[in-house]
Amino acid sequence: MTSIRLVRDELRPPQPPPRRHLLSIADLERDDVERLLGTARTFAASLDRELKKLPTLKGRLVVNLFYESSTRTSSSFELAAKRLSADTMTLKSAGSSVDKGESLKDTALTLGAYDPDVIVIRHPHIGPQLVANVTGAHIVNAGDGKHQHPTQALLDLYTLQEEFGRLEGLHVAIVGDVLHSRVARSLIQAFALVGVHCTLVGPPALLPRELDAEMTTDIDAIRAADVVYVLRMQNERMEAGANFVPSLREYAARWGITPERLRPGQKVMHPGPMNRGVEIDSRVADSVDSLVETQVRSGLVVRMAVLYDVLTGGPVGVRALAAAEVA
Amino acid sequence: MTSIRLVRDELRPPQPPPRRHLLSIADLERDDVERLLGTARTFAASLDRELKKLPTLKGRLVVNLFYESSTRTSSSFELAAKRLSADTMTLKSAGSSVDKGESLKDTALTLGAYDPDVIVIRHPHIGPQLVANVTGAHIVNAGDGKHQHPTQALLDLYTLQEEFGRLEGLHVAIVGDVLHSRVARSLIQAFALVGVHCTLVGPPALLPRELDAEMTTDIDAIRAADVVYVLRMQNERMEAGANFVPSLREYAARWGITPERLRPGQKVMHPGPMNRGVEIDSRVADSVDSLVETQVRSGLVVRMAVLYDVLTGGPVGVRALAAAEVA
Amino acid sequence: MTSIRLVRDELRPPQPPPRRHLLSIADLERDDVERLLGTARTFAASLDRELKKLPTLKGRLVVNLFYESSTRTSSSFELAAKRLSADTMTLKSAGSSVDKGESLKDTALTLGAYDPDVIVIRHPHIGPQLVANVTGAHIVNAGDGKHQHPTQALLDLYTLQEEFGRLEGLHVAIVGDVLHSRVARSLIQAFALVGVHCTLVGPPALLPRELDAEMTTDIDAIRAADVVYVLRMQNERMEAGANFVPSLREYAARWGITPERLRPGQKVMHPGPMNRGVEIDSRVADSVDSLVETQVRSGLVVRMAVLYDVLTGGPVGVRALAAAEVA
Repeated sequence: MTSIRLVRDELRPPQPPPRRHLLSIADLERDDVERLLGTARTFAASLDRELKKLPTLKGRLVVNLFYESSTRTSSSFELAAKRLSADTMTLKSAGSSVDKGESLKDTALTLGAYDPDVIVIRHPHIGPQLVANVTGAHIVNAGDGKHQHPTQALLDLYTLQEEFGRLEGLHVAIVGDVLHSRVARSLIQAFALVGVHCTLVGPPALLPRELDAEMTTDIDAIRAADVVYVLRMQNERMEAGANFVPSLREYAARWGITPERLRPGQKVMHPGPMNRGVEIDSRVADSVDSLVETQVRSGLVVRMAVLYDVLTGGPVGVRALAAAEVA
Repeated sequence: MTSIRLVRDELRPPQPPPRRHLLSIADLERDDVERLLGTARTFAASLDRELKKLPTLKGRLVVNLFYESSTRTSSSFELAAKRLSADTMTLKSAGSSVDKGESLKDTALTLGAYDPDVIVIRHPHIGPQLVANVTGAHIVNAGDGKHQHPTQALLDLYTLQEEFGRLEGLHVAIVGDVLHSRVARSLIQAFALVGVHCTLVGPPALLPRELDAEMTTDIDAIRAADVVYVLRMQNERMEAGANFVPSLREYAARWGITPERLRPGQKVMHPGPMNRGVEIDSRVADSVDSLVETQVRSGLVVRMAVLYDVLTGGPVGVRALAAAEVA
Repeated sequence: MTSIRLVRDELRPPQPPPRRHLLSIADLERDDVERLLGTARTFAASLDRELKKLPTLKGRLVVNLFYESSTRTSSSFELAAKRLSADTMTLKSAGSSVDKGESLKDTALTLGAYDPDVIVIRHPHIGPQLVANVTGAHIVNAGDGKHQHPTQALLDLYTLQEEFGRLEGLHVAIVGDVLHSRVARSLIQAFALVGVHCTLVGPPALLPRELDAEMTTDIDAIRAADVVYVLRMQNERMEAGANFVPSLREYAARWGITPERLRPGQKVMHPGPMNRGVEIDSRVADSVDSLVETQVRSGLVVRMAVLYDVLTGGPVGVRALAAAEVA
């Protein structure tokens, strides 16, 4: 057990017990990760039954606030809440007051006034922290720009654990557009926490030097890993004039993961949605060594565990965050 | 009772009992139709009560996946599921990963990994069959391009049965844009199954010769029918350069259903949404002989029956479909 | 107790008891307002509990039909329904049959055929009355063009009552774009009903002479009021060529509410979403004297009360409206 620093939210009267959020993998201790994965495993067992709905969070309200388009993540959280009998309300930026130019802060104040139990937020910038500051809800970061995507990292740990029966000592090669990837940033921290050895592989322009990780521009380095984790080419983030790669075709030829580049039996992961024929060959995506569907399945139970954990706590807590950092 | 061919899904381990889908009217026997209409009648009785919600599908999950815009059909399915206490999750193509270029197959694999009980899908092409192939859910086709719209045909049978007390021997004239109409294709098959006599009426360019049905270009032929079934002018499908009709104005003048073209007391149906003033005159749409509102009401109970039937089975089954046809 | 005129709906067979709607503040008596605020107070007490969901409307269906974008109002109604255990279905104009050019009347007939208990509607024109005419549901007006927004006025009364402990004799200055504001129109009627003294303040072009209220173009007049109620600049309504104000910058300089324009301790309200820096200075919006968050919180319990009241009635009724006015 670790000792947990519980920091009070300065903008509101103190609330016993302090609110639990999941904003960043950096806030977790190894014990937190193990508790969350254990809870996910318990929920997974319940999903083998004919009726999969549990009464655990009956009467609770989970609001999904998505400022960027998403099918996988928003539907995964919505379903995780529903499987636990929570009510859900989903707000997307299109067709909402966001279009009228309302600031995130005012939207957050509005949502906060409804007293939801949890707000799950995806935002291109610092949204999750701000919403934590100005509401009384438990906040779960569902992706904030290129900073963090903590539930993705947790579901990937869960997937690895289920596949290999352990995490400690595994070797994962993360391939591709690390520069724009919040998934990579969260994964690097999560791997460090649980003892997974991690190598970043990709073109020099997409490997940020400041990351605390082993890096190489040699694509053949992936063969040394137990798992090749293929990142999505973030086309939509790369449009603003910056040519990080010469062309998608050339990228696919030099860095795309084909069966020929893999060892037989080497496992492959991808956070989705996949650009088939760009960063991943369809033969790889559809092979028996692809863990992509398992990742989606893991996402559901891990998000059930996260919602349960922030709301009800456990023997040790997800570290509650200080609220004073954002204006 | 008919004998039912139950064909196993080749892409997944065998599951007892085989999954039941509703993909096409062509998969149904007359007994299936009668069972479904009987179930719908039972649900209709329950809707006369002050509280209309039934606990029948409590704890089940129905996912609505709509790749084409729809109010009537998607809301009808959503409500049918809710009236039976199922949870629902609706995904529309706008604002989802579909926008990021994710293939239908990957979306289906993602949804399938959530283990929903039923996936209701509307798709411009062969979507429902593909989703049946790659997921373990029961699939209901809510319209696939111009191929099939089986729940529309079933709700129309239900409407006719309620109005006339029988189906056998009725005569229905289907008028208008048969060429682009999945409703017409499903109806022709459904009518053949239950002994409704059917005549197709419209301009030559909109009457496809390959359909196995009586056809005429004489608009006055509609007077011989018990019911005039007016098809929607599919403006959005006709834009790509092909001029099937000279103009909407001329179409309305020559083929639009006005009170003058009808026998007194002749019943009129339309699958909605109506183009008032084009294929149907507002005086007809709003007359006491219009069954349009009844059709909507029938849609709710028939979709309740379909969801119930694919999930729980009955004395005889909706024929489970082979899965190997689509790549 | 007032005597209530109950007028039958002419377009449908008489239904005992007559349906209760909330279409306009003009339909309410003072007793109705007091009953609604009392019910809201009861619900507010229930929201202090850990589990906030009440079983009151279990099995009921509330349809939200929004023809204009909204986060606050649609989410407030959706949540109000869910807190009372009702099922909800939300239809927005984007991505629905509305796009296919279906008339409001046909959409209403479709929804009506589903027999929802309540239809909450926002529409740029006369929509709520029309939907009341052609369906059997209880209708709640969530804003119709610049005519009425009755639940906003009720939640503002509730907010004032909670803040001051009374309504009678309070003085409220309504500042800004009165011309385009349905909020102002509903508020003026509501204030008259309960004895709140009201002054309209703004540029001459935005103060419609026909309103039955005290008016001034002297911005300093706001200092005499207990509360300054700041209206949103309806940019989106002012685009059609008409220059009601020289520029937003000049508007802000002459009419924007800054700390300097207020008395110390003077309370400020705004219906949201706020244009910070235009009609309201951020220092005012975020000050302890701002009641904006309280208004949002009041909106939830007042809408719970309205849904409860139209559905279940009380000792005296919201006046049921005649249906014959709209074609």
